[in-house]
Amino acid sequence: MCELLGMNCNVPTDILFSFRGFSRRGGATGPHADGWGIAFYEQHGCRLFHDPAPSARSPMAQFIQNFPIKSKNVIAHIRKARAGSVCVENTHPFHRELWGRSWVFAHNGLLRGVKRRPLKWYQPIGTTDSEHAFCFMLNHIRREFRQPPTLSRLSAFLRRLADDLAELGEFNFLLSDSRALFGHCSTKLAYVERKAPFARAALADDDLEVDFSQVTTPRDRVLVVATTPLTRNEQWQTIAPDTLQMFVDGKAS
Amino acid sequence: MCELLGMNCNVPTDILFSFRGFSRRGGATGPHADGWGIAFYEQHGCRLFHDPAPSARSPMAQFIQNFPIKSKNVIAHIRKARAGSVCVENTHPFHRELWGRSWVFAHNGLLRGVKRRPLKWYQPIGTTDSEHAFCFMLNHIRREFRQPPTLSRLSAFLRRLADDLAELGEFNFLLSDSRALFGHCSTKLAYVERKAPFARAALADDDLEVDFSQVTTPRDRVLVVATTPLTRNEQWQTIAPDTLQMFVDGKAS
Repeated sequence: MCELLGMNCNVPTDILFSFRGFSRRGGATGPHADGWGIAFYEQHGCRLFHDPAPSARSPMAQFIQNFPIKSKNVIAHIRKARAGSVCVENTHPFHRELWGRSWVFAHNGLLRGVKRRPLKWYQPIGTTDSEHAFCFMLNHIRREFRQPPTLSRLSAFLRRLADDLAELGEFNFLLSDSRALFGHCSTKLAYVERKAPFARAALADDDLEVDFSQVTTPRDRVLVVATTPLTRNEQWQTIAPDTLQMFVDGKAS
Repeated sequence: MCELLGMNCNVPTDILFSFRGFSRRGGATGPHADGWGIAFYEQHGCRLFHDPAPSARSPMAQFIQNFPIKSKNVIAHIRKARAGSVCVENTHPFHRELWGRSWVFAHNGLLRGVKRRPLKWYQPIGTTDSEHAFCFMLNHIRREFRQPPTLSRLSAFLRRLADDLAELGEFNFLLSDSRALFGHCSTKLAYVERKAPFARAALADDDLEVDFSQVTTPRDRVLVVATTPLTRNEQWQTIAPDTLQMFVDGKAS
């Protein structure tokens, strides 16, 4: 299994606190030691970091933990390889361009037989089932819409695609088209919404607490989504199985 | 103007020495302070780093200077913005997938009116002339070849595309399809081939020398290409204007 981490906010926010706890699960508090990656949207652009080393011991992950990139949409992944060798091209999140936008995708689970699904414009670079599923979805989105649809139309179409692919196995994923963050739960995905009045939070995987009231303004909204809760003292909402959830401006919608 | 740096080798090699000198030109020894980026091919995958901060003062550039990623093909760029604002999406190198391969491109120069060239499958995410030119080339490559051509056929086709676009202005670029590194010179591009017997080299932009005979084997071949020579005591070959040069396995071919 792998683990997913995402963030969606109404103002650009750094993910240092959450990423610190999350990256510990890649070889220290968790077994997901076959590489990690993170994508930060900044306006229309997207900064990507991929490393096939365990995140808990990766100098690059340590750098990212101390380098505050402010972003309204973030997708991160720590890998426990089941399909495909440990190498950069098999390291999530995957990224492609569609309609002049960056699309980013990370997956937790295994989709048996997905490679038999035919592809057209987008082809995988690596050998994972996950990247094949991402390319399959983008091919269908591209075929369905001549131009970028509204978020609600995109969300409805993604739901159909996710339902279809989830029949092949576990399909927990995070996806963004740069406007919104989509999270699909097959078996395991939860989120927490942080808004005023902000409170203290304590990591589940490391000895660190932060008082969010000291680093936010009353209008900030920050939503963090993860395979399992990253903090010990907050109310995380479990997403129901077989549900696609859209997050916009720091809110589940 | 911007500056380009590329490396092509027969065995995976780090670029720490060259990148250290090159990144000084982004705000210290040179004026190219509007962001920088670097792409490292590793097998089929590609690790990308983009930062809109000046490379000479960028913590991320400092990290990369000390983090030895071994690669057979590297493309880096420091930017002096002329078209498009300073932001992640306008930061070279640009990247796209074609035929399940990573393609990476960085440009030095300005192509007037290139945005009037129509695009199809690939669209720019940012607003630079450079990314538009890259998308234009990929669209034509995709239309010309149903499947990946041999390197010599690809090289011949790239030459035609480069000749065409160079009529719009300055078109110094580095491009890779993961198999080879292509360098096109409109006005300024030079390279040095390092092979046995290896010797000492001294950076032009920093107080650093390295004895390559201590860090190589006799079979290694490392080719470094840059807008202007990065070392003070080596013989750099100037590429003639209006020439596309292909580099494979650390050799100009």
